Amino acid sequence: MSSAAHANRRVAYFNGAIVPEGDVVVPFRDRSFRLGDGAFDMTRTFNHRVFRLKEHIERFYQSLRYLRIDPGLSPAEMTAASEEVLERNLHLLGEGEDYWLGQRVSRGVDAVGDEGWEHTGPNVIVECTPLPLKARARQFRDGVDVVVPAVRRTPPDSLSPRAKTHNYLNMLVADMDAKASNPAAWSILLDVNGNLAEGTGSNIFLVKDGAVFTPRKQYVLAGISRQTAMELAAQEGIAVHETDVDMFDAANADEIFITSTSWCIVPARTFNGQPVGEGRVPGPVTKAITDAYVRLVDCDFVDQYVRHA
Amino acid sequence: MSSAAHANRRVAYFNGAIVPEGDVVVPFRDRSFRLGDGAFDMTRTFNHRVFRLKEHIERFYQSLRYLRIDPGLSPAEMTAASEEVLERNLHLLGEGEDYWLGQRVSRGVDAVGDEGWEHTGPNVIVECTPLPLKARARQFRDGVDVVVPAVRRTPPDSLSPRAKTHNYLNMLVADMDAKASNPAAWSILLDVNGNLAEGTGSNIFLVKDGAVFTPRKQYVLAGISRQTAMELAAQEGIAVHETDVDMFDAANADEIFITSTSWCIVPARTFNGQPVGEGRVPGPVTKAITDAYVRLVDCDFVDQYVRHA
Amino acid sequence: MSSAAHANRRVAYFNGAIVPEGDVVVPFRDRSFRLGDGAFDMTRTFNHRVFRLKEHIERFYQSLRYLRIDPGLSPAEMTAASEEVLERNLHLLGEGEDYWLGQRVSRGVDAVGDEGWEHTGPNVIVECTPLPLKARARQFRDGVDVVVPAVRRTPPDSLSPRAKTHNYLNMLVADMDAKASNPAAWSILLDVNGNLAEGTGSNIFLVKDGAVFTPRKQYVLAGISRQTAMELAAQEGIAVHETDVDMFDAANADEIFITSTSWCIVPARTFNGQPVGEGRVPGPVTKAITDAYVRLVDCDFVDQYVRHA
Amino acid sequence: MSSAAHANRRVAYFNGAIVPEGDVVVPFRDRSFRLGDGAFDMTRTFNHRVFRLKEHIERFYQSLRYLRIDPGLSPAEMTAASEEVLERNLHLLGEGEDYWLGQRVSRGVDAVGDEGWEHTGPNVIVECTPLPLKARARQFRDGVDVVVPAVRRTPPDSLSPRAKTHNYLNMLVADMDAKASNPAAWSILLDVNGNLAEGTGSNIFLVKDGAVFTPRKQYVLAGISRQTAMELAAQEGIAVHETDVDMFDAANADEIFITSTSWCIVPARTFNGQPVGEGRVPGPVTKAITDAYVRLVDCDFVDQYVRHA
Amino acid sequence: MSSAAHANRRVAYFNGAIVPEGDVVVPFRDRSFRLGDGAFDMTRTFNHRVFRLKEHIERFYQSLRYLRIDPGLSPAEMTAASEEVLERNLHLLGEGEDYWLGQRVSRGVDAVGDEGWEHTGPNVIVECTPLPLKARARQFRDGVDVVVPAVRRTPPDSLSPRAKTHNYLNMLVADMDAKASNPAAWSILLDVNGNLAEGTGSNIFLVKDGAVFTPRKQYVLAGISRQTAMELAAQEGIAVHETDVDMFDAANADEIFITSTSWCIVPARTFNGQPVGEGRVPGPVTKAITDAYVRLVDCDFVDQYVRHA
Amino acid sequence: MSSAAHANRRVAYFNGAIVPEGDVVVPFRDRSFRLGDGAFDMTRTFNHRVFRLKEHIERFYQSLRYLRIDPGLSPAEMTAASEEVLERNLHLLGEGEDYWLGQRVSRGVDAVGDEGWEHTGPNVIVECTPLPLKARARQFRDGVDVVVPAVRRTPPDSLSPRAKTHNYLNMLVADMDAKASNPAAWSILLDVNGNLAEGTGSNIFLVKDGAVFTPRKQYVLAGISRQTAMELAAQEGIAVHETDVDMFDAANADEIFITSTSWCIVPARTFNGQPVGEGRVPGPVTKAITDAYVRLVDCDFVDQYVRHA
Repeated sequence: MSSAAHANRRVAYFNGAIVPEGDVVVPFRDRSFRLGDGAFDMTRTFNHRVFRLKEHIERFYQSLRYLRIDPGLSPAEMTAASEEVLERNLHLLGEGEDYWLGQRVSRGVDAVGDEGWEHTGPNVIVECTPLPLKARARQFRDGVDVVVPAVRRTPPDSLSPRAKTHNYLNMLVADMDAKASNPAAWSILLDVNGNLAEGTGSNIFLVKDGAVFTPRKQYVLAGISRQTAMELAAQEGIAVHETDVDMFDAANADEIFITSTSWCIVPARTFNGQPVGEGRVPGPVTKAITDAYVRLVDCDFVDQYVRHA
Repeated sequence: MSSAAHANRRVAYFNGAIVPEGDVVVPFRDRSFRLGDGAFDMTRTFNHRVFRLKEHIERFYQSLRYLRIDPGLSPAEMTAASEEVLERNLHLLGEGEDYWLGQRVSRGVDAVGDEGWEHTGPNVIVECTPLPLKARARQFRDGVDVVVPAVRRTPPDSLSPRAKTHNYLNMLVADMDAKASNPAAWSILLDVNGNLAEGTGSNIFLVKDGAVFTPRKQYVLAGISRQTAMELAAQEGIAVHETDVDMFDAANADEIFITSTSWCIVPARTFNGQPVGEGRVPGPVTKAITDAYVRLVDCDFVDQYVRHA
Repeated sequence: MSSAAHANRRVAYFNGAIVPEGDVVVPFRDRSFRLGDGAFDMTRTFNHRVFRLKEHIERFYQSLRYLRIDPGLSPAEMTAASEEVLERNLHLLGEGEDYWLGQRVSRGVDAVGDEGWEHTGPNVIVECTPLPLKARARQFRDGVDVVVPAVRRTPPDSLSPRAKTHNYLNMLVADMDAKASNPAAWSILLDVNGNLAEGTGSNIFLVKDGAVFTPRKQYVLAGISRQTAMELAAQEGIAVHETDVDMFDAANADEIFITSTSWCIVPARTFNGQPVGEGRVPGPVTKAITDAYVRLVDCDFVDQYVRHA
Repeated sequence: MSSAAHANRRVAYFNGAIVPEGDVVVPFRDRSFRLGDGAFDMTRTFNHRVFRLKEHIERFYQSLRYLRIDPGLSPAEMTAASEEVLERNLHLLGEGEDYWLGQRVSRGVDAVGDEGWEHTGPNVIVECTPLPLKARARQFRDGVDVVVPAVRRTPPDSLSPRAKTHNYLNMLVADMDAKASNPAAWSILLDVNGNLAEGTGSNIFLVKDGAVFTPRKQYVLAGISRQTAMELAAQEGIAVHETDVDMFDAANADEIFITSTSWCIVPARTFNGQPVGEGRVPGPVTKAITDAYVRLVDCDFVDQYVRHA
Repeated sequence: MSSAAHANRRVAYFNGAIVPEGDVVVPFRDRSFRLGDGAFDMTRTFNHRVFRLKEHIERFYQSLRYLRIDPGLSPAEMTAASEEVLERNLHLLGEGEDYWLGQRVSRGVDAVGDEGWEHTGPNVIVECTPLPLKARARQFRDGVDVVVPAVRRTPPDSLSPRAKTHNYLNMLVADMDAKASNPAAWSILLDVNGNLAEGTGSNIFLVKDGAVFTPRKQYVLAGISRQTAMELAAQEGIAVHETDVDMFDAANADEIFITSTSWCIVPARTFNGQPVGEGRVPGPVTKAITDAYVRLVDCDFVDQYVRHA
Repeated sequence: MSSAAHANRRVAYFNGAIVPEGDVVVPFRDRSFRLGDGAFDMTRTFNHRVFRLKEHIERFYQSLRYLRIDPGLSPAEMTAASEEVLERNLHLLGEGEDYWLGQRVSRGVDAVGDEGWEHTGPNVIVECTPLPLKARARQFRDGVDVVVPAVRRTPPDSLSPRAKTHNYLNMLVADMDAKASNPAAWSILLDVNGNLAEGTGSNIFLVKDGAVFTPRKQYVLAGISRQTAMELAAQEGIAVHETDVDMFDAANADEIFITSTSWCIVPARTFNGQPVGEGRVPGPVTKAITDAYVRLVDCDFVDQYVRHA
């Protein structure tokens, strides 16, 4: 499927071996292709140094356990594979570029029995993906447009949002609805109770009267970036509340920001089309946490994004 | 991944070509592997003749439209590809065997941009899988054990159960819970309102006082086998009601049966551990619809299954 | 508040008298101003003839009874007042123009006791408003863009959507959200169960395989235009189903149309940004019902709107 | 509408001017009359001194922002207008009387275009209303009868209870149901989860084992009096919990009290017809907070009410 | 426990024997006393003739099956026991009196093991109770006051309302709330969706425009009297709809009536304090069905009740 | 009903008198037999010393108050009766045995009026039951199998789970479903929000990263053993959180344990069939709290149970 002439030279871990990325292909009978029956996790590098890999691997194993998938590797082995994959791909990064570093496990192939598969157990993949700096530069500079679609985040008693699985259609369908009216929309779904929950791979924070509010962990995937932002806020003397927040809170927030692995922390300029607070982007609290984040990771990710505009 | 020596000789349609099944592999960057971002449909053959392919293809395009995926083929082309794949694989079937015939479309690869993919659009696959006659023979003979797990079917305002997508974790997690206590359990989930909904690829029917009841279409994938059973029941003079049915109805049903593409129609012997009705399997109404089904498809699928016990 | 020089010459019924429209003013202590504590109804004229006034007045009295407001007039008196107001305003209509004809009742003034009000009981108003033909001409010609906002229609056990009251903020807030991303959006809210409900003063219909589907009466105000469209569809031999319809149905509808007093029936061109059916506006079923509607009211309201574009 | 002979002499602020209260009238086309499309806030005076006007104005602007209404005045200007209106009306108060001081903004008139309105933007009103001391004296002395009606408080994803809007029918319909069986009933609605929420302009508190419990802010309008009571309780060394409270809590409460702008704090003698705690009114905790409230506002509002019995 | 001097002479069936009613006592370790772990059914006589015993016994066995209780008697044996108990008690009835005839089964005693119980299996009781004609005479003459309490009917996925069990606290708590404000209130609970469900042993019917509406079977115990009323209405040419009905419907109903075993059919004069329809009791449709009921059972139960006033 | 020869010699308190247990029988017309209209509480002894009787009696009176039942005894009298019943039964205990000590009150008999009952008011019972040490020994040694059934715990707005009433069918039906697949299953129900709630007379705790989590009080009966375990955990320096916990939490818990009056604290070995944590039973945190519990009650209840295996 990949043309040798134009092929990238990145490598990936695939079931025990380091192979060219283009060789990481799975049979259509793999359960993750057919059923989304798999899980993943994803961290990023800052100036080529990986961020909180341990926490990501821990969270990854929680998702796997919820799905009753045994990847056949220990967390330590998964960590080592991740570090090796990163190490062997770093030289391909351009100036000021960084990677997502991801782990993926499917439950494996549903074999008919006559195919002669050498391997039908879990497919384990570790891979690097360059961050989409250019595509997101504008939003970093100007702020994102948060839009709440009508589709509700899948409730925990159907499938827990706290497992980072390969079943993303709930959020994808919601996001297509939001982007149909505004292609730049960043969708944040409500949970079944009508509270703000999360968007694709991203958490939302509101700032009000100098304090920071973000949805409770039960209805969202508690991001590592979310956790980092909360720790940094506390460290900066900013009160942090994990609690139910809703559209009334958002309409009256002084600032809103989004956290995600790739974005770290990015300000919102509008919420459902209405300017956030007094419309300054980023607001002072968002700025303070962003600055602390930059110091923590020793990488000016804001500048990194904006430079690519 | 497949060992040449033991490889099956089945072929499949893959993005325009008929290729050996073992060559139908997708990059890990395919969105259906990573996100379950795809849809499928599935019919079966009876004595090697395909059943209601047109209805299945129609339903498949409804799933795709809901997901805003354009497969790049018209329904007629998808049908033709399906017929060709079947034709070229029929000679591999053993005596008394039959195929599932399935179509799958993923939204395609999320390309980084430097991989040199020849193809990043939707991956379109049509394939044949031998029916698991032996594995299910016991249940056909004795009846299935229906168990209702605690996990609820994903509500329609999160992701419509009426689209047959590659996001199956809701039902898989539920099924693992049910099978943990009874490995032979066939799980049927409740919807958010507490009514019986559906199981993995299967619909439930209750028989009471000579009439047949099955959940309304909104909370379930309205199976073609479900539709067939309803038509046959009507044809046999049996009243059919699409309506809310719940655990009280099930506890007091005279008979319960399950429909699915592969099973067509199979009786339940217990519901949450309690014998169904007077415990005869199949009951007279189930038997009458089954017999009509056998006549319709001109294939004694009951015998086909039971023979493999 | 009105400048004499530019004042319109329309008159209205106000608590027993016919007065210039500009004189129909209510104290700020009126409960409908302060609490939305009132109800209304609204029909329109076709070529200056009023449409189904009786049905509207009947529905109006149902809203009032639900609110336990006694307007002090019988339905017959309300009808007579409506006819008189219309009669006395008809001469002001321009060529090809028509009126909304509305009745409004508030519960009256919450008197402190020292104001010397001559009247504190219900304020009863009957008035004419020219139809916004020009503002809606584009949508009639090209179809409306239906958008589903995140805000859910108020549930019946909080306040019944079947009473046409002066409490519209639920729908107004939803509509502002939808229009923030697309100013031309026509918002249709979901009910608490995630089914399509209604928009501001409007009902939604889906067409699938030649039949027509519209939400059940319990979660929506059952419009007179909705009723008319259903009767006309039946008369044209088109099957009509009042049933739960959801976003999956809408994504797969062949046609979608909206009914309302002013619009009668207008086709939708998109649903959440996706073209409806094959994108033809209006589709054949919508067209057939529209044509029948035009014949029924003996007024080509489509032409009436489009001419104003 | 007002008879000159008996007219009160109170003045009000109306769109920039101080005018006699009887002149504050709005066209029937004002959106707050027609749709309840407006918001308000309300504080009171104690011995003619206004209470926490700043907090009320802040909350008022949160309601307006949620509704996307710009009143055209800054909070400081609204405050100044409020103070002026109060100042100019104080001389009309009798011995021991006090005022409600309210601000109201509607979104303005939906103009047809030919009426020659001088003003179609938001209608801004600031007004004084004498407190209903006599009408409530009995309840202050003996305690109120709290009754929970069947109607549920509008859920936040339909319309946030935290915005103090002109849409009060949900609570009015509930209150009429409660008062139909007991005209002295004070209705407190449940939220959609079955927890105690709030009544018309009033918050509920339970006392159990010396601590105070009141519903969380999300499902209720967080009253300034509620906030005051919580601060005073804390100051008196009484533990305060904002948490879910339900009918089991209420049945077993030692004391129950209600807070509202006008009442400040009033004890309940029964809850759904059952005497509260040991039936003493007010109980010791209610008494302690009431006494602290009296000291804070330097006005014995209990005596003020009871004297009017 | 019963004083011989004043003891009634009624007999009852108790685990195989006919014994004096006063001898039907159960150990406190019986599961129905401790857990409500039992079920019952109840019909009545008309002029000493039992009504639809077969249907009641059938329904009884559905309740038992749902609870997985095997009473140890066949339906035919239960019927025979019922007939015998009635036969032996008839001579005790006064002029114009009639009986309730009830069957009750508990799951039996949870034995410690050392008590030496002769019997620990299901306790089976059949008994007669004189109808409370006098206590209900006033309501029959004037109509009942229907009140909707805040407590919601237990949802079917917690415990099916369709099983007539010994767990009545949900309805008893609701009824005490309603009666606290109005001792004559007849409470009808809402289901979890906010629709009218049922009251203690009673179903509700609305009449609107000559047709009859009653809640669907899923959220209520489908009474035999309900079924009878529906059949009689149909026989009288009155359209009958089993459908969702809510408080808006009730506010606008022309007539409301209640059915129950003892009452058969009784008109409501108010609904939540508001007169039903035009306030005539019984209304013409209620009257027509009542008359047909009287003819069916060949007993003027209206007169029977009213005579006792 | 009891055979004199084999009768136990335990006595019980019954409406004012101490009588042989076999004499505590209630008429079938008692409301708790017919309707489950009663409440109870239950503590146990450790080495024949009663545990926290005061707290149990307090909780008992909360249940009674919620049901509006006045038992006719003060809490002090109920305590005294309990102590006397225990005292008079202690001599019957074997080596290493202990008692449950329970109080039960029904609302009493619904008298027809002609039975000549000496007593129709509340039936008050205090009784001792030997603990089922042998039956539970295996689970204490190996850990219980926690299974979540599909039936949901009755919501608080139907009947509060916080009142310990004689209405247990919700949990009994759920438990029969769970045990049908695994007779050793210990069922823990979800609440209406999909969070873990409680099982029959038992609370659930999760251990994660050294801290302890248990469901909030609103949806469960807050057990005295639950309270004890929380206090002991805190005393041992283990953080305790009362919060929403769900099936994702359970799948990823390091340890799970159950508390109940009889069991005190027992470890779970599986949750929905998946081994808990690393599968060690009991885990270190469970062990630490158990040890503290043993010290508190000065009775090695673990050994007491296991010895009976």
